[in-house]
Amino acid sequence: MTVVAADAAVSQVDAAAAAASTRPRCSTEDMLQLLQDYDCWVFDLDGTIWRGNEVIEGVLEALELLRKLGKKVLFMTNNSMKSRGSYLDKCLQVGLPAHVDDIYCSSYSAAAYLDSIGFDRSKKAYVVGERGIMQELAAVGIESFGGPDDNEKRASFSSEMLHDTQVGAVVCGVDPNLSYYKVQYASMCLLLNPGCLFIATNTDARGHFTPNLEWAGAGATVGAIKGVVERDPIVTGKPSPFLMQDIAAKHNVQPAKSIMVGDRLDTDILWGLNTGMATLLVMTGVTDEQLLVAQRGSSNGVKPHFVMDSFGDLRRVAQQALQQQK
Amino acid sequence: MTVVAADAAVSQVDAAAAAASTRPRCSTEDMLQLLQDYDCWVFDLDGTIWRGNEVIEGVLEALELLRKLGKKVLFMTNNSMKSRGSYLDKCLQVGLPAHVDDIYCSSYSAAAYLDSIGFDRSKKAYVVGERGIMQELAAVGIESFGGPDDNEKRASFSSEMLHDTQVGAVVCGVDPNLSYYKVQYASMCLLLNPGCLFIATNTDARGHFTPNLEWAGAGATVGAIKGVVERDPIVTGKPSPFLMQDIAAKHNVQPAKSIMVGDRLDTDILWGLNTGMATLLVMTGVTDEQLLVAQRGSSNGVKPHFVMDSFGDLRRVAQQALQQQK
Repeated sequence: MTVVAADAAVSQVDAAAAAASTRPRCSTEDMLQLLQDYDCWVFDLDGTIWRGNEVIEGVLEALELLRKLGKKVLFMTNNSMKSRGSYLDKCLQVGLPAHVDDIYCSSYSAAAYLDSIGFDRSKKAYVVGERGIMQELAAVGIESFGGPDDNEKRASFSSEMLHDTQVGAVVCGVDPNLSYYKVQYASMCLLLNPGCLFIATNTDARGHFTPNLEWAGAGATVGAIKGVVERDPIVTGKPSPFLMQDIAAKHNVQPAKSIMVGDRLDTDILWGLNTGMATLLVMTGVTDEQLLVAQRGSSNGVKPHFVMDSFGDLRRVAQQALQQQK
Repeated sequence: MTVVAADAAVSQVDAAAAAASTRPRCSTEDMLQLLQDYDCWVFDLDGTIWRGNEVIEGVLEALELLRKLGKKVLFMTNNSMKSRGSYLDKCLQVGLPAHVDDIYCSSYSAAAYLDSIGFDRSKKAYVVGERGIMQELAAVGIESFGGPDDNEKRASFSSEMLHDTQVGAVVCGVDPNLSYYKVQYASMCLLLNPGCLFIATNTDARGHFTPNLEWAGAGATVGAIKGVVERDPIVTGKPSPFLMQDIAAKHNVQPAKSIMVGDRLDTDILWGLNTGMATLLVMTGVTDEQLLVAQRGSSNGVKPHFVMDSFGDLRRVAQQALQQQK
């Protein structure tokens, strides 16, 4: 839950990092090579493109230059609070042109997964999370309830609780109104309804939902339910490779010509590694130098192919590449 | 979250269990032997002595007979909602005579643990759980806050959150008002306060806080926080052997002459095994035949020394032993 102050933090630890790191930051030559090697660029949003509502300096220009170079630019966020439509709105608001098909969010991933396995439409989904999950479920014809509609409900040991026996899946994501009631209701569905699926949009421990503070992520929701039902969920967002098929089919993308850019080792970079893409870690989000060095030194650590302080740093070389192309 | 209907459930599976079990239920001879071999009897409460507010048939008489035989009778519950004083009140209400020193609850275990390591009294504890934890902390001179006082607080991404940098321990137990706010506050203390301890009264997945339904236990609280801070808590209640020292010192008890009686394999029986006691599983709580058979068949399963359908079954042989003694 480090307060992000990337410039200051990085400069303080530069000396130690340079000694301990097995790979330094991308050089200008590295960046030019990346622009040559990869046609499809998949970006995480929070901590990579923006922090809360503030776009990270230089990132919009770097993305614009990528597009001028003819690159496919996609966005993939584990934040399950919104639907793809809402993310599109946010992209447009911050001055980042996009199409809804360019956006992959974990609320969509949960709906796409249930759709892909032919989820019985006579069953319902119980949602512990935000409206975005319910919107994406509705878009594939799956009835859901719970979510923000259950925010005010409270469990009481003085009255018994009933649950809907037609719930065939519990879908959970980050929920700023997580409550004992919701955990209990979800657990009853999972423990008492035969075959009820436990779906996690993601298991991120923390997220930068506001610029200066890390907040409890979907890891809180998943952890609470898992602590009761004693089984692991099916994860549909990063680092699960599930969405790669969808991306490959829609955008005619080859993993070998693609690069994942993100701020989290355990989701963004792991997802890229799991799907056969190149990976580029940026230090503008949750990963600090200490964590990066620790992972690099660990035999089972998640090791990104490339590291940059900020994706905004690319704007200089992208400009250069563009001029060379002319 | 099986609805407990012990008599019916056991009779239905008797045939299968007899074939699959490596050890059948205690015979009359076994019970008489137990009465001869063990001087100290430690009992779980929920699911062993009572379910919710209903005492299990025959158990009070069996306990009375044990005491007439000169046995030491202690109670140990992982339910952290109440203090020892409150449990004493409940025991007396249901007609079970006891002294506060005979009662061990996990709220006490957390306070006793912090006391045992010399917790700095200039620091505070943040509690995610019920008032009982705060009462036991106060009894050893540790200032705490949170608990039920935070039930109505809500986190909001539209305003930043502050936390008390003087929190030196987060103590969590079952919390029927678990909320995102509490999880976030606890996580901030654990992630931002250097050396802040993560204490779990227990990690029980579920508990029979009402007679006919299983409810989310401390596992929900611990799981939610663990899902954010990505580290394991120090567990002070069952199955942690921590309280055995306290019991041995106060009651002059030897593990080899003691037997743990409980309904949970992963807490009661494991605690008994961890502390070198004999163990007696009763089938009046969360363990069903299927789970028992699965554990017995597993190489790393938790295997009780003895099994009885209900501790109330002992009343017949205890009566017999008492008559022989005269």
